[in-house]
Amino acid sequence: MANKLEEKTNKEESSQAKEKDIEEIFKEFKEHSVAEFFKKNRQMLGLFGKVRTLTTLVHEYVTNGLDACEDVNILPEIYVKLEELGKEHYRLTARDNGPGMPLDIAGKALGKLLAGTKFHRYVQTRGQQGIGASGVTMYSQLTTGKPVRVITGTGKKAYSFDLMIDINKNEPKITNEKELKREFRGTQITAEIKDVAYRKGEHGPLEYLRRTAISNPHAKITFKDPTGEITVFPRTSTQIPKKPEEVKPHPSTIGVDDLLNLARKTKARTIATFLKTELDRFGGNSLRVLEEKTKVKFNKQAKLLTWEEAEQIIRAFKEMRFLAPKTEGLRPIGEERILKSLKKIVNPEFLRVTTRAPATYSGYAFQVEAAIAYGGNAGRRLINSNQEQGHESRVEIMRFANKVPLLFDEGTCAIAKAVKTIDWKRYSIRDFENSPLTILVNVISVHIPYTSAGKQSIAEEEEIVEEVRKALMQSGRKISKYIAKKRREIEKIKKREIFEKYIPEVAFSLSRIINEKKENIEKMLEKVVLEKLSLDLSNEEEAKEILEEERDEENEGENLG
Amino acid sequence: MANKLEEKTNKEESSQAKEKDIEEIFKEFKEHSVAEFFKKNRQMLGLFGKVRTLTTLVHEYVTNGLDACEDVNILPEIYVKLEELGKEHYRLTARDNGPGMPLDIAGKALGKLLAGTKFHRYVQTRGQQGIGASGVTMYSQLTTGKPVRVITGTGKKAYSFDLMIDINKNEPKITNEKELKREFRGTQITAEIKDVAYRKGEHGPLEYLRRTAISNPHAKITFKDPTGEITVFPRTSTQIPKKPEEVKPHPSTIGVDDLLNLARKTKARTIATFLKTELDRFGGNSLRVLEEKTKVKFNKQAKLLTWEEAEQIIRAFKEMRFLAPKTEGLRPIGEERILKSLKKIVNPEFLRVTTRAPATYSGYAFQVEAAIAYGGNAGRRLINSNQEQGHESRVEIMRFANKVPLLFDEGTCAIAKAVKTIDWKRYSIRDFENSPLTILVNVISVHIPYTSAGKQSIAEEEEIVEEVRKALMQSGRKISKYIAKKRREIEKIKKREIFEKYIPEVAFSLSRIINEKKENIEKMLEKVVLEKLSLDLSNEEEAKEILEEERDEENEGENLG
Repeated sequence: MANKLEEKTNKEESSQAKEKDIEEIFKEFKEHSVAEFFKKNRQMLGLFGKVRTLTTLVHEYVTNGLDACEDVNILPEIYVKLEELGKEHYRLTARDNGPGMPLDIAGKALGKLLAGTKFHRYVQTRGQQGIGASGVTMYSQLTTGKPVRVITGTGKKAYSFDLMIDINKNEPKITNEKELKREFRGTQITAEIKDVAYRKGEHGPLEYLRRTAISNPHAKITFKDPTGEITVFPRTSTQIPKKPEEVKPHPSTIGVDDLLNLARKTKARTIATFLKTELDRFGGNSLRVLEEKTKVKFNKQAKLLTWEEAEQIIRAFKEMRFLAPKTEGLRPIGEERILKSLKKIVNPEFLRVTTRAPATYSGYAFQVEAAIAYGGNAGRRLINSNQEQGHESRVEIMRFANKVPLLFDEGTCAIAKAVKTIDWKRYSIRDFENSPLTILVNVISVHIPYTSAGKQSIAEEEEIVEEVRKALMQSGRKISKYIAKKRREIEKIKKREIFEKYIPEVAFSLSRIINEKKENIEKMLEKVVLEKLSLDLSNEEEAKEILEEERDEENEGENLG
Repeated sequence: MANKLEEKTNKEESSQAKEKDIEEIFKEFKEHSVAEFFKKNRQMLGLFGKVRTLTTLVHEYVTNGLDACEDVNILPEIYVKLEELGKEHYRLTARDNGPGMPLDIAGKALGKLLAGTKFHRYVQTRGQQGIGASGVTMYSQLTTGKPVRVITGTGKKAYSFDLMIDINKNEPKITNEKELKREFRGTQITAEIKDVAYRKGEHGPLEYLRRTAISNPHAKITFKDPTGEITVFPRTSTQIPKKPEEVKPHPSTIGVDDLLNLARKTKARTIATFLKTELDRFGGNSLRVLEEKTKVKFNKQAKLLTWEEAEQIIRAFKEMRFLAPKTEGLRPIGEERILKSLKKIVNPEFLRVTTRAPATYSGYAFQVEAAIAYGGNAGRRLINSNQEQGHESRVEIMRFANKVPLLFDEGTCAIAKAVKTIDWKRYSIRDFENSPLTILVNVISVHIPYTSAGKQSIAEEEEIVEEVRKALMQSGRKISKYIAKKRREIEKIKKREIFEKYIPEVAFSLSRIINEKKENIEKMLEKVVLEKLSLDLSNEEEAKEILEEERDEENEGENLG
C-alpha cells in the first residue's frame, strides 16, 4: 500500500514537471561534427595513457608514411624523432620520402577527419579511415594549443605551413603557408604534444618501430629517441613489395546492401554485366548457375535491381563455390621475408611460416600468414631473468594488421582469441604460456574490421578467427615435429651420457675376458654408441629435407567455403 | 652490387610511374559522412558476431528508454519483444513509457548519427554519443533493406512513421508519417534485422536485461523471447532515483583546451567571474590562491584569455585542493538498492557494498561503487556442474557504466584491469578465479571514456582504475573478515565434532572417578564445549554490529588528490 501511494505521488509530481522538462530537453538537441565526437572521445582513437598515446601518435605518422611510399612504389625511408621539451612534453617529427601532397589535399588529409583516399577503395592499406593523422593534429592542438608544422613536396613544388583543425566544423585551418626554396619530396610533420611519456619497453615507440621493421623489411627506419640515441632499422630487402591492387567485392560473403549500392553506382547496363564487372571471380559459369537458382531477370537494367532480387542472388551465392580472391589485391609480408626478419631479430632455434590462401568476410578479401619461432631468443624474456642461456621465457605474440604492429587491446583481438582456442599440447607444447615461443600473425585485408578507431585490435569475425586458427595449427604441426624430435634427441643425449659413463668399466671387464687391449675395446664401444644414438639435429641436410616435405604437405589448397 | 642495381631499376621505374600515380591517387581523395564511416566499420559499434549484435541492438533501445524516463522522472516500464521470422532473421520491438519525442526530433534522434541531447552536456546519462539508436536503424536497413517503424507520443500528439538513413548524407528519411488516433505516451520502435542469433546465456539479451534490472531496481522490464516465453523483472523499488543534475567541469583535472573553450563561450565578463561561474567547486578562496600562484590579470575580459594564461591557471589547479565534485551530478545505484538487488538475484551468504566519494578525470566527475558477494549462489556456475549444494563456481564480474551492464570487451576494460591488479589473497580469497564470488562494479560519470563507440569497455584512465581498485579493496577488507571468520567457525565445528565424539568416553571415565552419573557429566561437558566453540555466523545481531563497525571505518574521506 505504501508503495502504491508513493508511486501515485511520484506520478503526479512528474506530470507537472513533465511539460517543462520536455521542452528544456529538446532545446538541448544538437548535431555534432565528427571532430567534436573524437575530441570528446579521444580514448576511441587510442589516445589515453601517457605511454600508449605517444606510441599511437608515432604509429599514425609511420603508417601514413609507409602507405604514401607504397602508393608510388618507392623504397620507404622513414625518420622519426622525439625531443623532450619538458615534463610529459615532447616534440614529435616524422618524415617520409613518399610522393608528397598538393597543398589543398595536405590540409584535408591532415586536418579533417574522414577525408582521404583510403576509406572507400577496396585496397590493402595501413591506414583506412582518414582519421589517424588528423587525430594527431587534434591531439597536438588540444594539449599544447599549437598547430602542427607540415612540409610537403611533390618534387616540383614544396610547401611548408601550419595546420590546426576547426573542431566544430571539422575543417582544416592553414596558416603561415610558404613555398619552399629548396627541393623537397615527401612529407614531414612536426607536432608538439603534452601529457605523454616516452618509455623503452613493450609498449613504447621503439618496440613499435622494431616490429614495423620486421613486417616491412624493405623500409629503412631511423629513430632518434629523447636522449639523442639513434636506432637504425636497415633494410633487409631492397625489393619493393608489389603494390596491392584494388580488389572487387567477393561474391561469397558480400551483403545484400553492398550489392545494391554497387548496382546503383555501376556503369554496366544489365544485371548480368553488372555482376561480371563489379564482382571478383564472377564469370559466365557463375551467371548460368545463378540463372538456374534464382528467378531474377538478368537482362534487366542493373540500376533497377530490387532488394528482393539482390537477396535471391546473395542466397544463391552462399550455395555456390567461387575461386579465392585474386592474390593481386593481397600482399602478405611473404614467407622468405618473415624468415629473414625473424632470424635476424629473434634468432630462434627453429622457425616455420604458414601462408594461407586468400579468403573473405563480408565481401572483403583477406589473408593470414603466421610464423612460430621456437627456442633461441624466441619468447618474451622475463624482467630480472638471466640474460645468459637458460633464461626464463614467456610466449610472445606479435600481432599485425596489414603489416602494422598492434601493441594494444590484445584482450579483444581476433588473433589473441584464435591463439587461445588452440590446444597447444597437441603440438608438443606442454606449457604454452611459459614456452620460448614467438608467434607472429599478420592479417591482411582490403578492409580490416577494427573494433575501434584506435585500430589496435581486429574484431572477432568468424571467418578471420578461423583462418588465423588454421594458419597457427599448420605452423604448430611443423613446429611439433621439431619439438618432438628435439625431445627424442635430448633423451638420446641422456642415454649416451650414461653409456659413456660405463664404457671404461665395461671395456676393462671385457679386456680381461677376451684378452684384448682396453683402449681398443673402448674405441669400439664408443663407435657403436655414437652410431646407435647419433644426433641429427645439427644436420643441415636433413633439416632441409624436413622443410621440403612440409612444403609439399602444405599445398592443401583448402580455403573458401 | 646486385641489390644496388635492383634498387636503381626500381627507382627509374617508379619515377616514370610516379606522376601518373600521384594524380590518380589524389583523384580518389574524398570526404565521407560519419554514417558511411560507421556503416563500413560497424564492428566499432559492437555490431559483429550474431549473438553479440542482437544483444547490442537490444541494449541501445533499452538504454534510450531508461534515459528518456529519467529525463522526466518517470518510473520506467520497458518492454522488449523478439520474434524469429526465419533463419537468423528477427523482429525486435522495444517500448518505453518515456516522454516521447516531437516528429522532427525523433527523426534525427533515431536516424542521424551524432545528433542528440546527451553528447555536449555534463550529465550522467546511459547513452552519451548520439550514435546508438541510429546505429540500429542503420543495421536494420543494411541487413533487411527495411525501415524501422517508430511510434512516439508526447501525450498530446502521437505519430507513427517509417525511418531510414541516407547514409551518404547522414540524414533521416521519414516516410508513411501518420498522426495516431489513440493516445500514446512514450516511444516504440520495431526493427527487422538479419544475421543475428538469439541465445540464452552469458552474452544474450536475457542476461543483459537481468543485469539491467539489478542496476535499475526502479524499472519494470518485460521481455518476450522468440519462443514466446515472457520474463518479467519487477520493480524492487518504487522510488525514482533523483535525476542527475548537470555538473560543471571540475578544476582539479580539466584540460587547458577545455578551459579555453569555456572561456570563449561564457557570458561572464571577467576571467574571475568566468572561473567562478563555469567551474565546479571554484569560489573566492580558490581565486585568491590563483592570484598568488599565477601572473594572470583576473579582471581581464574572459573571452581574451590566452593559451599561456590558461596553462598557468591549470598548472596552479594541479597544486590546489578542491572539494570533490557535487554529488547532485552523480547518482549511483546506491548501497541499499544494490544489497536488495543482489540478495534477491544472487542470494549470497555474505555481501558488502562500498561507495566511494566522487572523483574526477579530465575535468569529468565520476564515482565508483562496488559490491562483493560471497557464497550461496554467488559466482558463475560451471556448465555441467551440479545444480545442488557443493557445485563448482567461478568468479563472476558484473561491470556497469552509468548503470548499464557491460557484457563484452572485458579484455580492455578499466574495471577488469583493476580487478586483476588486486592481490586477492590479502583478502582471505585463496583461489580468486575459482571462488564463489560475484563482483559488481558500477562506474558512473558525466562522461564515460569508452574505448569504442560500441560502449562495452571503459578506457584505462589512471584515475578510474585507481578508484575501482580502492572500492574493491574496501569491499575486500569487509569480506575478508567474514571469510576469515568463517574459516575459524569451520575449525570450531571440526573441533567440536572431535570433542563430541569423545564426550561419552570421557564422561564414562569421569563418572567412575568422581562417582557422578555419566548422563549428568555428559550434559555438563556438552555445555562447556558449546560455550567455548559457539557458532556465531548465523547470528543476525552480530552481523549487524560488524556492518556498523565497518561503516564507521569507511568514512575515511580520502579521495581527491
